[in-house]
Amino acid sequence: MPKNDTFLRACRREAVPYTPVWMMRQAGRYMAEYRKLRETRTLLELCKTPELALEVTLQPLRLGFDAAILFADILLPLEPMGASFEFAKGEGPVIHEPISRVEQIDALRVIDPQEGLGYVMQAIRLLKGELSVPLIGFAGAPFTLASYLVEGGKSAHFVKTKRLMYEQPAAWSVLMGKLAEVVRRYLHAQIDAGADAVQLFDSWVGQLSPADYEEHVLPHVAHILSDVETRGVPVIHFGTGTATLLELQRRAGGTVIGLDWRTPLADGWRRVGHDRGVQGNLDPTVLFAGADLARRHAKRVLDAAEGRAGHVFNLGHGILPETPVDTVKAVVDFVHETSERRPRGPSVG
Amino acid sequence: MPKNDTFLRACRREAVPYTPVWMMRQAGRYMAEYRKLRETRTLLELCKTPELALEVTLQPLRLGFDAAILFADILLPLEPMGASFEFAKGEGPVIHEPISRVEQIDALRVIDPQEGLGYVMQAIRLLKGELSVPLIGFAGAPFTLASYLVEGGKSAHFVKTKRLMYEQPAAWSVLMGKLAEVVRRYLHAQIDAGADAVQLFDSWVGQLSPADYEEHVLPHVAHILSDVETRGVPVIHFGTGTATLLELQRRAGGTVIGLDWRTPLADGWRRVGHDRGVQGNLDPTVLFAGADLARRHAKRVLDAAEGRAGHVFNLGHGILPETPVDTVKAVVDFVHETSERRPRGPSVG
Repeated sequence: MPKNDTFLRACRREAVPYTPVWMMRQAGRYMAEYRKLRETRTLLELCKTPELALEVTLQPLRLGFDAAILFADILLPLEPMGASFEFAKGEGPVIHEPISRVEQIDALRVIDPQEGLGYVMQAIRLLKGELSVPLIGFAGAPFTLASYLVEGGKSAHFVKTKRLMYEQPAAWSVLMGKLAEVVRRYLHAQIDAGADAVQLFDSWVGQLSPADYEEHVLPHVAHILSDVETRGVPVIHFGTGTATLLELQRRAGGTVIGLDWRTPLADGWRRVGHDRGVQGNLDPTVLFAGADLARRHAKRVLDAAEGRAGHVFNLGHGILPETPVDTVKAVVDFVHETSERRPRGPSVG
Repeated sequence: MPKNDTFLRACRREAVPYTPVWMMRQAGRYMAEYRKLRETRTLLELCKTPELALEVTLQPLRLGFDAAILFADILLPLEPMGASFEFAKGEGPVIHEPISRVEQIDALRVIDPQEGLGYVMQAIRLLKGELSVPLIGFAGAPFTLASYLVEGGKSAHFVKTKRLMYEQPAAWSVLMGKLAEVVRRYLHAQIDAGADAVQLFDSWVGQLSPADYEEHVLPHVAHILSDVETRGVPVIHFGTGTATLLELQRRAGGTVIGLDWRTPLADGWRRVGHDRGVQGNLDPTVLFAGADLARRHAKRVLDAAEGRAGHVFNLGHGILPETPVDTVKAVVDFVHETSERRPRGPSVG
């Protein structure tokens, strides 16, 4: 058990002395230490070298975060599954052979993560000896991973992905089923290696209508979460643009549901249900406008949570590359200090 | 008054014999006639030559749409305001000198649309002699226009736009005020020229939280709509990703509120209020998956509207360039035939 387990207790909706805070992508390009390492190493080299992944994971903890998140990338499992990719300079991920035929789906391997992803579990084991806060493991969710596989990279409208889903629902189901099974095994392996909590990133699922989510995505997410939740570690279920999906995401699973900045936290929590935790939901762009404005917006988030047990403070999406470190630190301190002084609400809503 | 005024009557929530249908970007690249014209002309040449804008506007009407929308682009007003741009091949719009300094905002001209945009009104006057369905004029909304001006083109995270909004709220307000006043005048001029209805496109406003929309955008949209609505023509207020903004959009104004595909139509209409019309909301990507599937999804939209007066059938966003024309036609016919047979609901909810 880490020395500071506030984050884990908040995930479980237990009483905590203050609201714990971490930020998605808290290890990354906004930090000078990270940029220095990247001068001589690629992103994938950092991910695949446990000693370096450890170093990068630890870097942001000097800012006072209440949890560490393993430095890795959601696309890592695709490579051992048979879909190689790279991070092209300034363009984000590029899948070498995007999926356009059923045979490519059939050829994807449902791997044992110990084989192709052992370096991730090794980094987790190394980290466990170094940390005084909980370690969050993570994976991409099937829809988000499928979108990269089919589009070949980032996408504006996800036309190819949805087209496969609509036109070839059987092939889609096979693809989603393979991804879900790999992710399920991968999260188990991370927990086995020592992850204290895990987060499922369904970053792009907000492109779907509720009806399409329910039919084409929910069963695959539930396959993962219903099983991983039996491990007893908190499971965070995150997406963006999910304002119309929250009830379905709850049904798919998660100890804690992530809210992006477009859903007011009080409304989102009511819809998720007060018998679950919520994580979020500061707009990452407010961190560009100085500490005073960032604190004002952070206060809105804390006010919306009403001191209720079960709130993990976070951004509504990942921290952006040019974000000023000082403002990040100012927000972390503000959340701690302000929430510590606030009367605590009931632990069950 | 056009021969077929079903669309206008539906906007006013009057009883109609069937649900009228049009599609955003119904004139465009998915049609062979349009692609042929584009072989020798740029998009801006088509917009700026009233005879060609007329020709393109008329092209899709053979598919049975109940309204025509003027062929133009939301960015046209930016040029006479002093911000030149072009459409770069395959990249979308490129603003030549994106706004990064307050002096650039101060230099923007609040134009009389008759001066720099007379060709738009001329196209409207020409069209009025040719149409048997209502003609929809349109403009981009201030936030969406500002985002192009500040980002220099399309954007993933709208960081520069939001940064200006958060860091320099006074400069932001000047920029939004100038855009709003130009758009207000521009919509009046289109109505003067003969537009039977107008639509305000706030395509990217769904990037904002409700609190930020209310503070930084709503007053400027209301400045436009509260005034234009006095003209007595239907005003459609459209955005995407607006699931958490609908109540505020209603407050900002609009005879009809547009719903994107992520908000189930029945929920969206309830939140907008049954004393307003709604427009939408088929996912444009379903048109890629064959007529049967498209009809199934269109039926869901019609079912959600429950035959209530005030529904205009549309996509949830613009039609995509590679969309098969036959499927578009199949959906138009299906909406007409199915809604004609359906028992009509009450005209006021």
